[in-house]
Amino acid sequence: MKGKLYGIGTGPGDPELLTLKAINTIERCSVIAVPKSSGDGERVAYSIVEKYVIGKQLHECHFPMVRDLEERKKARLLAAEGLVKHLDDGKDVAFVTLGDPTTYSTYMYMHEIVVSQGYEAEIVPGITSFAASAAALGISLCEGDETLMIIPASQNERIEELLRQPGNKVIMKSGRDLAGVLEKLKELGYGDKTKVACEVSMENQQLYMSIDEYEKAPEGGYFTLVIVKEKD
Amino acid sequence: MKGKLYGIGTGPGDPELLTLKAINTIERCSVIAVPKSSGDGERVAYSIVEKYVIGKQLHECHFPMVRDLEERKKARLLAAEGLVKHLDDGKDVAFVTLGDPTTYSTYMYMHEIVVSQGYEAEIVPGITSFAASAAALGISLCEGDETLMIIPASQNERIEELLRQPGNKVIMKSGRDLAGVLEKLKELGYGDKTKVACEVSMENQQLYMSIDEYEKAPEGGYFTLVIVKEKD
Repeated sequence: MKGKLYGIGTGPGDPELLTLKAINTIERCSVIAVPKSSGDGERVAYSIVEKYVIGKQLHECHFPMVRDLEERKKARLLAAEGLVKHLDDGKDVAFVTLGDPTTYSTYMYMHEIVVSQGYEAEIVPGITSFAASAAALGISLCEGDETLMIIPASQNERIEELLRQPGNKVIMKSGRDLAGVLEKLKELGYGDKTKVACEVSMENQQLYMSIDEYEKAPEGGYFTLVIVKEKD
Repeated sequence: MKGKLYGIGTGPGDPELLTLKAINTIERCSVIAVPKSSGDGERVAYSIVEKYVIGKQLHECHFPMVRDLEERKKARLLAAEGLVKHLDDGKDVAFVTLGDPTTYSTYMYMHEIVVSQGYEAEIVPGITSFAASAAALGISLCEGDETLMIIPASQNERIEELLRQPGNKVIMKSGRDLAGVLEKLKELGYGDKTKVACEVSMENQQLYMSIDEYEKAPEGGYFTLVIVKEKD
């Protein structure tokens, strides 16, 4: 019998934010697949589940962070091929991914390729960085009639247009261009309606309740997330 | 010493989607607060955590589903008063809420009132219905440059305008007006790009990969969620 692929959301960092299903599924799998890229984000997923994977076979998937889409696609096919070898051996594979697998995760490319080749695959959802950030900040993401827009950092060129649309917004992984994003938010009058959460649920978590507060003591690295509320 | 209030996301229905933190926090609290409204959604939160609350004091909060905002606000103050009594007695209170407390949850009203009165309160994030729905459907919510807009069912009057905006969309709890929403989605050419998930992660879960598929065997009640992708 062929093995099955599981895409497992580990949540944002704190191992206590793993679901029972994530833990139970990892424990049933004999191979743990970990995405590895030029970025430093992915090793975090492994560190979250570390205590549940002792004695299991570790499989690294390489996703080079290159601009060329064709090269990225080639790398994905190659990575999926590596997973399929384990499935053909009858081994179940747990691919761990930070946050939630359906939200800006490399896992979905593996899922699509593997399913299209006739293998079984299942997704175990995880706590998103934005839900964890709002929780840590003690604020809602959306209530009543409010809409919520999730914006990836790669939309920085369109950010002003997106911010002008109604509703609350989350800007994901805005670390690199944070200064520019915060500048635009101030121009648009959102200084006090903007909250910043850095490395949420990790040991070096930093929370800021306004842009002013952030600018007095700016910190935070790769995992910086911005929440913009329409109302205070 | 005063007690502390915890807002705990139970996830969408499957008790296996509880986080370790949700379970550990519930086990430390002596009072379990459960929202009760005219809707039938809230008792589900209690049923998810049932096996962890044996022997604990149960406290029901009433949130009448009335149109008048002032009446709703009055009911919230009254409900918060009930929670505060336990906190004054030095008891920690776990308020359980379906999905995630920061995403369209009644809990946030309790959080704001209780914090404004000087009590401590903490939010434990939960798996959202939309992450669980995408996982069950085997699709991504958003990848690469895609934005994602979460739309509450109460925005039905503006739904066409919102659907015309770029990006992927989630329409929450669209049960009551589902037929009208699906009609508009077909008009806008999203028939095959629309997925429907009903009672996700519950025993009577139903999944539909297109509007046509849904219309052949429509089912699903209160917990119906629609995901609209820009790309197939």
